[in-house]
Amino acid sequence: MAGWKHTAQQKEHMMGRLTQRHRIMRVGRDGAVRNRGDVVAVEEPLELRLGGEPFTVTMRTPGHDFELAAGFLVSEGLVVVAEELRGLRYCAGTGPDGQQTYNVIDASLDPRVARLSIGQHRQVLTTSACGICGTTSIDAVEKALPPAPAAGPQLSLTVGDLLTLPDTLRESQRIFDRTGGVHAAGLFDADGTLLCLREDVGRHNAVDKVVGWALMEGRFPLVGTALQVSGRASFELVQKAALAGVELLAAVGAPSSMAVDLAERAGITLAGFSRRDSINIYTHPERLSDLAPATV
Amino acid sequence: MAGWKHTAQQKEHMMGRLTQRHRIMRVGRDGAVRNRGDVVAVEEPLELRLGGEPFTVTMRTPGHDFELAAGFLVSEGLVVVAEELRGLRYCAGTGPDGQQTYNVIDASLDPRVARLSIGQHRQVLTTSACGICGTTSIDAVEKALPPAPAAGPQLSLTVGDLLTLPDTLRESQRIFDRTGGVHAAGLFDADGTLLCLREDVGRHNAVDKVVGWALMEGRFPLVGTALQVSGRASFELVQKAALAGVELLAAVGAPSSMAVDLAERAGITLAGFSRRDSINIYTHPERLSDLAPATV
Repeated sequence: MAGWKHTAQQKEHMMGRLTQRHRIMRVGRDGAVRNRGDVVAVEEPLELRLGGEPFTVTMRTPGHDFELAAGFLVSEGLVVVAEELRGLRYCAGTGPDGQQTYNVIDASLDPRVARLSIGQHRQVLTTSACGICGTTSIDAVEKALPPAPAAGPQLSLTVGDLLTLPDTLRESQRIFDRTGGVHAAGLFDADGTLLCLREDVGRHNAVDKVVGWALMEGRFPLVGTALQVSGRASFELVQKAALAGVELLAAVGAPSSMAVDLAERAGITLAGFSRRDSINIYTHPERLSDLAPATV
Repeated sequence: MAGWKHTAQQKEHMMGRLTQRHRIMRVGRDGAVRNRGDVVAVEEPLELRLGGEPFTVTMRTPGHDFELAAGFLVSEGLVVVAEELRGLRYCAGTGPDGQQTYNVIDASLDPRVARLSIGQHRQVLTTSACGICGTTSIDAVEKALPPAPAAGPQLSLTVGDLLTLPDTLRESQRIFDRTGGVHAAGLFDADGTLLCLREDVGRHNAVDKVVGWALMEGRFPLVGTALQVSGRASFELVQKAALAGVELLAAVGAPSSMAVDLAERAGITLAGFSRRDSINIYTHPERLSDLAPATV
């Protein structure tokens, strides 16, 4: 896929927009006021166009926008292999006075995919917290998942390594350090080594950015990898992991019922409530290499 | 508005679906496995139809479905006063074998509103984490907000009362107690008294349920009230609060940049990082009655 690398100018523009300073009041129980500066995570709309046609708007933290766009197209089931995504570029002159906003991206798809997109796909606005958006019937909620690889599970991870993932994720969160207000997703190999970390005000966006990175780095599908997320595990996050080929999804928080159900059917190992000394395994424990026999 | 009360049978059906039990493994650092039962919050799709036409699907925790539907219509700007919502009912026979799923609701709107909806509004699938979905251009992200009441701020709250809201919310969360996996939104009066609490796997849904409750209880607009949410404050949550007339939005976590910007413009007091002994005030501190002069 050509044309997906951000230029130095684009990177500088995005990096300057990750956080925003405000003058706020910190108020104590007795009403005592201290005026102080505070840093909040930036949330801005990103409009994604397909071949020039409006497709979706998502609220996101600027940065890695091309990865977000690519990952979103994968999560929507529109792009399965990297060759289907021909290019990504910022649209010029979309601001009110004709300036470059870096908030509108146009994606060029393989013409066969593009026809499908425009003809059959829905137009949709997603939010910063939103992963799969746009259809109007329950039947369409569950997207077609790729068949499980014939070779079976390729990932094998020790429990000790799995337990280190949340700390590794947290230690690498640069925007969270400053704002306390963003989610993160991290992709890890079987040794617990961090391959890619992305942050965003939306937890679904953070996962899309990781997936888009992997697509554009030629690492698709993500067989042999584990994905750690900072929040809870919803149905949509399991779906995104499955569509990208991720084998294990670990959440710091709780999973939902449909997350557990989908992980079971999709053959994904789902872990939740990551703590330093224990973790819950909801589905497919066979990828953990050193489980002792159950004592209870 | 007629026909919005859930029947006893409907309530029983929903209450039985709030949580789901799974057999899971809790794994220690040494690989030791304990098999145990675990309770997860239920996440299921709810399809909302307008006059029989598909309109949106949201992933939600069952319970207070009519409130969720009503609140969503308010948050979308389709319903401004209760009279515009004529009725809500579950559609029968939507399951694969014709059974009642309690997952499809049909809303009857005032015919003038309904024409607008079907003609001009978008069709959309929202997720459990998603509030405002469906349009395809950035201009449409920001919905028209109602004018601020001519009388100015009606809410006046002490800092001490504001600091109690998160604990009151937490103590009243029945589903969280069992699952650790749901968000909550609570509506409070100026004395810090809880008027309505709703829980959901999606934080936007929790707010929509509270807004829908208020609409159907004849409490609209929500002048004189404060809304406490369990998570962070995004742009969409501020927008929902503004469309409902809420005067103060307090989040346990951080706000985003667009949340601060919109709260400033909409005249809403935005508070974040609620702690037991302090809280950050980002906008419109004039509703806090006992602020001392700033010492720094």
